[in-house]
Amino acid sequence: MPKIAFLECSRCQHRESADVPRTVCPVCAGTFYVRYDLSEFKGTAVRDSLPQTDSMWRYSPVLPDALPVTLAEGWTPIMASRRNPNVLLKEEGANPTGTFKARGMSLCMTMMKHYGVQKVAVPSAGNAGGACAAYAAAAGIEAHVFMPQDVPLANQVECIAYGAHMTLVDGLISDCAKIVASRKEEEGWFDVSTLKEPFRVEGKKTMGYELVEQLGWEYPDAVFYPTGGGVGLIGMWKAFLEMEELGWVSGKRPKMIACQAAGCEPVTKAYREGKDASEMFQNAHTLASGLRVPKPYGDYIILDVVRESGGTVISQTDNEIFASIQDWGRNEGILLSPEGAAATAAYDRLIENGFLKKTDRVVIFNTGTGNKYTDVLNVMQRAHHAV
Amino acid sequence: MPKIAFLECSRCQHRESADVPRTVCPVCAGTFYVRYDLSEFKGTAVRDSLPQTDSMWRYSPVLPDALPVTLAEGWTPIMASRRNPNVLLKEEGANPTGTFKARGMSLCMTMMKHYGVQKVAVPSAGNAGGACAAYAAAAGIEAHVFMPQDVPLANQVECIAYGAHMTLVDGLISDCAKIVASRKEEEGWFDVSTLKEPFRVEGKKTMGYELVEQLGWEYPDAVFYPTGGGVGLIGMWKAFLEMEELGWVSGKRPKMIACQAAGCEPVTKAYREGKDASEMFQNAHTLASGLRVPKPYGDYIILDVVRESGGTVISQTDNEIFASIQDWGRNEGILLSPEGAAATAAYDRLIENGFLKKTDRVVIFNTGTGNKYTDVLNVMQRAHHAV
Ligand SMILES: [Zn+2]
Ligand SMILES: [Zn+2]
Repeated sequence: MPKIAFLECSRCQHRESADVPRTVCPVCAGTFYVRYDLSEFKGTAVRDSLPQTDSMWRYSPVLPDALPVTLAEGWTPIMASRRNPNVLLKEEGANPTGTFKARGMSLCMTMMKHYGVQKVAVPSAGNAGGACAAYAAAAGIEAHVFMPQDVPLANQVECIAYGAHMTLVDGLISDCAKIVASRKEEEGWFDVSTLKEPFRVEGKKTMGYELVEQLGWEYPDAVFYPTGGGVGLIGMWKAFLEMEELGWVSGKRPKMIACQAAGCEPVTKAYREGKDASEMFQNAHTLASGLRVPKPYGDYIILDVVRESGGTVISQTDNEIFASIQDWGRNEGILLSPEGAAATAAYDRLIENGFLKKTDRVVIFNTGTGNKYTDVLNVMQRAHHAV
Repeated sequence: MPKIAFLECSRCQHRESADVPRTVCPVCAGTFYVRYDLSEFKGTAVRDSLPQTDSMWRYSPVLPDALPVTLAEGWTPIMASRRNPNVLLKEEGANPTGTFKARGMSLCMTMMKHYGVQKVAVPSAGNAGGACAAYAAAAGIEAHVFMPQDVPLANQVECIAYGAHMTLVDGLISDCAKIVASRKEEEGWFDVSTLKEPFRVEGKKTMGYELVEQLGWEYPDAVFYPTGGGVGLIGMWKAFLEMEELGWVSGKRPKMIACQAAGCEPVTKAYREGKDASEMFQNAHTLASGLRVPKPYGDYIILDVVRESGGTVISQTDNEIFASIQDWGRNEGILLSPEGAAATAAYDRLIENGFLKKTDRVVIFNTGTGNKYTDVLNVMQRAHHAV
């Protein structure tokens, strides 16, 4: 594994060392990216002799040099749709804790342990809280999780099972973040909020490496990503740039499609209005609890990536999301998460309106297993008389 | 892949061809095993050049010659406990539908499609019903699932999502089986009840191949298996015999430890009393819903395997099961299913009573993800004031 060269601000390019744990850029509060000297890993020889570990740690040449806190996250299946072989589903539900959040938390807790951090706190829309609790337990670190009181029951049950200190908040993830910010100093918590801590996005970048490797080191035409905080999308774009620097992939980068829910669409709104950042979305409400992020911290990066890639941002209603869950369940044998279904439904819309063709090769991320949404899906099934 | 030579009765050795779909032995109603001519796959050269597919289909040389109906099942992680590296957890929760049932249903639906079967029916304690619904959807086969009315909510939600015809029954899996038996002829359903259909056990045998391959083609000292129907245990034993015939493994086979719940322990009782088969267990009740099988169809095989292996059968109370869920959540970062926790708790008992030593290398199966038991665990957490 490479030593980290420095941390670089995603907004103002300010640099800091990675010798101590850091949150955001002290100059402009931008998100830090982890930078390495990758010169010794360049070329397809390294690429073609990656360790055959069946986890994201096969990409250790481009991850920090630290002892992994791992539960076998990553290297998830990519499966062709039975109805169109050009549609590939990346099944992140196969991860530990059942969502892609495992990747970021594995690397984050690896580094927290490396730095000797003993207590962490995280505001979460649900699944990050569960993953934080699991990996903190594995690392022997004390975790404090703040989540909206109406997160899926699975997120509450898992936090308790992993022994985390869980607080349910009458509000959204933004309200949870305020509590963490106000208490962390006094309590001695290290804040591992998404994009305020550099290693969660660094772990999630492995999704970019994986999808390209699983396509034979070629880019697809488009990537559909359920976008709450948008860290997966941001991480994948970082991976694509690194892979090009490494000479591991070439050609046209995929159109990045950020998929939101109509009930909480700050990025869609900003994109539509041609803005560089989002505004706090009022009265956020959607059954896709992972997309209830009213003002993503990395909104400026998401919008930049989408535009640079020639992609788009698109929102789906809860009814469209539920219809896509039914569609994929009945026709593919796959139980999507509501977030994943926002992406599959988005694909259908972009085929309908001609933005993409059925012959385009696309990767759609199911960011979590539907099994974590039992209570949510039960309510939807009853409401739609599917029972 | 090999052609099937014949089906052989596990009790009376009667043979039938596999040219048409079959259920049990017409002579004695015993379970059929699938037999092949494996001569061309003998030796470590074949073993060491298995297809590197990241699913159970890497074992295609020892599976039937048919087009797989697959959702990327199998090749699940095996992870060392953080507290004792000799304790290896086989994480079957990483499978599609979140349980080991995916393996059996993948192969079963592969063969149903191969045979042109259009409608199947299954009695289930919960997770087999969900897996049947998913793989039937993937195969384009109509599924009829019968489950106890108090199965975990996740099993109900998934069956509906996959478009199966679901009937909730006021009774146990044994009552569900009676309904399937009484209606299947008239309805034109093929009965894919566990061990009454030869390919579910055949799919589950891949767990045996996997654990041996993952240990570098060596046997562990013991295997802990949560035993409701016991098909996984039976399948693994078949795998061990095949692997020895193939020359892929040698040495002492592992002690097979069948793990039951005290609230439904027909096999423990039969084992304790020195019997060759179990009796219908009365008033079965346990939070480990997958272990609520009051009279396993393959009880005679389970008892035989356990005795031949020098293993044992052992039951845990619901409180012991819950304590082990808490233990593994807090210390390992892993959310066990109640069935898996019956196995981890069993390990602790057998260390306490000296049946095994801490230096023995053991594989414990977590047969499903805890995420499918959100409602069950929530009730237990409240009852134990863990909230
Ligand atoms: Zn900056
Ligand atoms: Zn027979």
